[in-house]
Amino acid sequence: MPLLGLLPRRAWAALLSRLLRPPCASCTGAVRCQSQVAEAVLTSQLKAHQEKPNFIIKIPKGTRDLSPQHMVVREKILDLVISCFKRHGAKGMDTPAFELKETLTEKYGEDSGLMYDLKDQGGELLSLRYDLTVPFARYLAMNKVKKMKRYHVGKVWRRESPSIVQGRYREFCQCDFDIAGQFDPMIPDAECLKIMCEILSGLQLGDFLIKVNDRRIVDGMFAACGVPESKFRAICSSIDKLDKMAWKDVRHEMVAKKGLAPEVADRIGDYVQCHGGVSLVEQMFQDPRLSQNKQALEGLEDLKLLFEYLNLFGIAEKISFDLSLARGLDYYTGVIYEAVLLQTPTQAGEEPLNVGSVAAGGRYDGLVGMFDPKGHKVPCVGLSIGVERIFYIVEQRMKTKGEKVRTTETQVFVATPQKNFLQERLKLITELWDAGIKAEMLYKNNPKLLTQLHYCESTGIPLVVIIGEQELKEGIIKIRSVASREEVAIKRENLVAEIQKRLFES
Amino acid sequence: MPLLGLLPRRAWAALLSRLLRPPCASCTGAVRCQSQVAEAVLTSQLKAHQEKPNFIIKIPKGTRDLSPQHMVVREKILDLVISCFKRHGAKGMDTPAFELKETLTEKYGEDSGLMYDLKDQGGELLSLRYDLTVPFARYLAMNKVKKMKRYHVGKVWRRESPSIVQGRYREFCQCDFDIAGQFDPMIPDAECLKIMCEILSGLQLGDFLIKVNDRRIVDGMFAACGVPESKFRAICSSIDKLDKMAWKDVRHEMVAKKGLAPEVADRIGDYVQCHGGVSLVEQMFQDPRLSQNKQALEGLEDLKLLFEYLNLFGIAEKISFDLSLARGLDYYTGVIYEAVLLQTPTQAGEEPLNVGSVAAGGRYDGLVGMFDPKGHKVPCVGLSIGVERIFYIVEQRMKTKGEKVRTTETQVFVATPQKNFLQERLKLITELWDAGIKAEMLYKNNPKLLTQLHYCESTGIPLVVIIGEQELKEGIIKIRSVASREEVAIKRENLVAEIQKRLFES
Repeated sequence: MPLLGLLPRRAWAALLSRLLRPPCASCTGAVRCQSQVAEAVLTSQLKAHQEKPNFIIKIPKGTRDLSPQHMVVREKILDLVISCFKRHGAKGMDTPAFELKETLTEKYGEDSGLMYDLKDQGGELLSLRYDLTVPFARYLAMNKVKKMKRYHVGKVWRRESPSIVQGRYREFCQCDFDIAGQFDPMIPDAECLKIMCEILSGLQLGDFLIKVNDRRIVDGMFAACGVPESKFRAICSSIDKLDKMAWKDVRHEMVAKKGLAPEVADRIGDYVQCHGGVSLVEQMFQDPRLSQNKQALEGLEDLKLLFEYLNLFGIAEKISFDLSLARGLDYYTGVIYEAVLLQTPTQAGEEPLNVGSVAAGGRYDGLVGMFDPKGHKVPCVGLSIGVERIFYIVEQRMKTKGEKVRTTETQVFVATPQKNFLQERLKLITELWDAGIKAEMLYKNNPKLLTQLHYCESTGIPLVVIIGEQELKEGIIKIRSVASREEVAIKRENLVAEIQKRLFES
Repeated sequence: MPLLGLLPRRAWAALLSRLLRPPCASCTGAVRCQSQVAEAVLTSQLKAHQEKPNFIIKIPKGTRDLSPQHMVVREKILDLVISCFKRHGAKGMDTPAFELKETLTEKYGEDSGLMYDLKDQGGELLSLRYDLTVPFARYLAMNKVKKMKRYHVGKVWRRESPSIVQGRYREFCQCDFDIAGQFDPMIPDAECLKIMCEILSGLQLGDFLIKVNDRRIVDGMFAACGVPESKFRAICSSIDKLDKMAWKDVRHEMVAKKGLAPEVADRIGDYVQCHGGVSLVEQMFQDPRLSQNKQALEGLEDLKLLFEYLNLFGIAEKISFDLSLARGLDYYTGVIYEAVLLQTPTQAGEEPLNVGSVAAGGRYDGLVGMFDPKGHKVPCVGLSIGVERIFYIVEQRMKTKGEKVRTTETQVFVATPQKNFLQERLKLITELWDAGIKAEMLYKNNPKLLTQLHYCESTGIPLVVIIGEQELKEGIIKIRSVASREEVAIKRENLVAEIQKRLFES
């Protein structure tokens, strides 16, 4: 139990007010007053110091801070993802972090219990968004938008049991691309798969495969196997676990927990082993049970057309029609897909990565209509890039290779070998900043030259400009390359031009 | 009351499952099945259609969606802000959207009641972050970071009465820059002011002024005027309202609500009218009451040094020492500042803008120590750019000027005048995408040429590539400039090179 809980609120407030009180009389500035205030804490009547070891400083379970190192990796990956979305003509948009609770209820099937609710503080009942798809559908319906191609990068929150080792968190980033509107069949669907391929190739994560199926084929298969219609979504959720669980365990869940007849489960078991290219689509047209089912046939027809377009896009060999793909979410109505990285032989010293799917999506033609007062529908298809898993993979690889990233972009450091040269350094750095050059200096009146040069080496700053008494007298500046340690003298008035020349060349 | 509330949950679930059910037998795909499913809704036993007019679709009070138009403006402004932060050597970082509630309590003075709490769902007590400063201090203490220059762009949440007209929302974006570490006095503080100037100049929002004061001068002034120490923070909160309320009303609040003696209030009233440059600092050194107060003297000494550095940075004329500046937050310990736009004469047709402060910050040397088990302090100084207000101003100006922004970046449109040319269009666009060119086409099998050209004009796409039977036969492609309507024929195999040449030239 932290101290905050043990102390009466008023006593704690008094302690804080002591801590925040201005510095004592004998010193001349807040910064310099540090030791005195620390002493005040030490001698506090509340004996805060002695009790403070109980005070454990934490962040919420399943969340994490993103350090500058994390941020650099993320920025690079997000840039690549977003530029692909823009290459395909998508507009950006954003929605609030929370929605009315009723907007989100009944959309996510068995996962609905994982939603974060906000406390009722005397207003509306709110929940943090669980994905970016439902808010998008709500946006389309609310604004009566009938056609839109948009991307959305943002955080979502799910109260899952966090298994942090595998890069799963309760707060995570999603990157979604969706096409809303009434169009000719399978053209937008094929573009979504093209985008997934472009992004996964661009990120150079190794070989990957995109599994494709259709919710109508899944349901048709269930009907053909004898699953009662009332159990379709529940069995769908079980099938969805096949990437993490063995068939034996999924079968057990369906029979023992969800009351499916064992022979029905076994019939499903035959289908979910099937995967292949367009030839499997042709084969399924001939399947005695499936071909009896009208909706399965529609799904198969659409998949056939989809494969034609995938061929033209040059990505058909990356796509596998896979009858075990079910996708857990309630809202899918047509084609569904999920990209998985193909396990490469573990490199020396590299932890084996088990990351599951890195991108997924599908068609959801009914979701917007659920929000429209008159039930008007807007057909949609989209995809979500599992960037958190991708961040994790890239970070692991960098760690294995011992790769370091610069966390700043500073180009020039302003240094002096002399004492009392703060004024000159401030004037110099102002010139650089005003010319748009990224520059730093140490916040010390009299730093040692070695300390200054060491700072450049440790943070990767490529250039140093050096000013001392001699330089000031002669109207020159020295420019030093940190890598080669070479120094050249230039005229003071040419500073910006000379720096820009060197930055452009490197 | 929306329908969701009126229907029993199970009946609603049944309706949803009808809506989401695969399309009926007589049609061939989910998209094409729209009318039939709409009919199913119409005839639903639940009479959902008739009741649905009661269903009002909303987003939470005080929040808003950001449309593609908003996003384009924001992206430009945030790019400028972030590149300034990077120019000054800052690293990026992020923290979770929520913190343990106890991390945030007792940090914000009178505003603490405006925090969004999460519902207790059987775990920790959590609150949405209220600013980016307290999470930063928590991060420093938790990771024992003694020195860091970072920026953080992220959403924060406050349950304020939303006055949406003025661009104030309950969810809004903050852009913070902070320098943590033990340095020589006023160097980082001056850099923070330099950064504010660079950003506000760069955004071309018109003339601005940065008010500067010091928490020690505020408290010294209170002591000199006879305010009891226990009332310092409460009176500080009142003074903080001077930019929105008249002195008369602030005085009333201090006397009637906070129990201050009227003559004490009047003495404060004399001071808070004072503002000026470094000469006012000199003048205050001579003030008979203030010069008796040690902490006020320390504040004045630091301000004198600050103005020296501001001169070297070339921004002293933008800074005004203003005794009415108090800043409401509890955690400030030294210099404080706030930038305001100077009202320009209202342009023809432009709504008068009353936007208050557009950037603010200060020194908080005690906050990190509050999180450290041993009370170790890390002095900090920082600033926050009020980007929401800036977004609002820029959007208003664009509206007045009738400026339109492109919400996509598409460079090339793939068109055809012929029927049954989908395959050729798909092949062409694949070539463009694979070469990194931003390209779009219509998702129709047989779109009209006029529709395709109109799409380019309305969305601002500059180039069209056209393929028809003739072109296919001759192995050529036509490139059309949307602006000039000129068309040239090029060899099919030169497509990418010719497009890149034109994009580079424009």
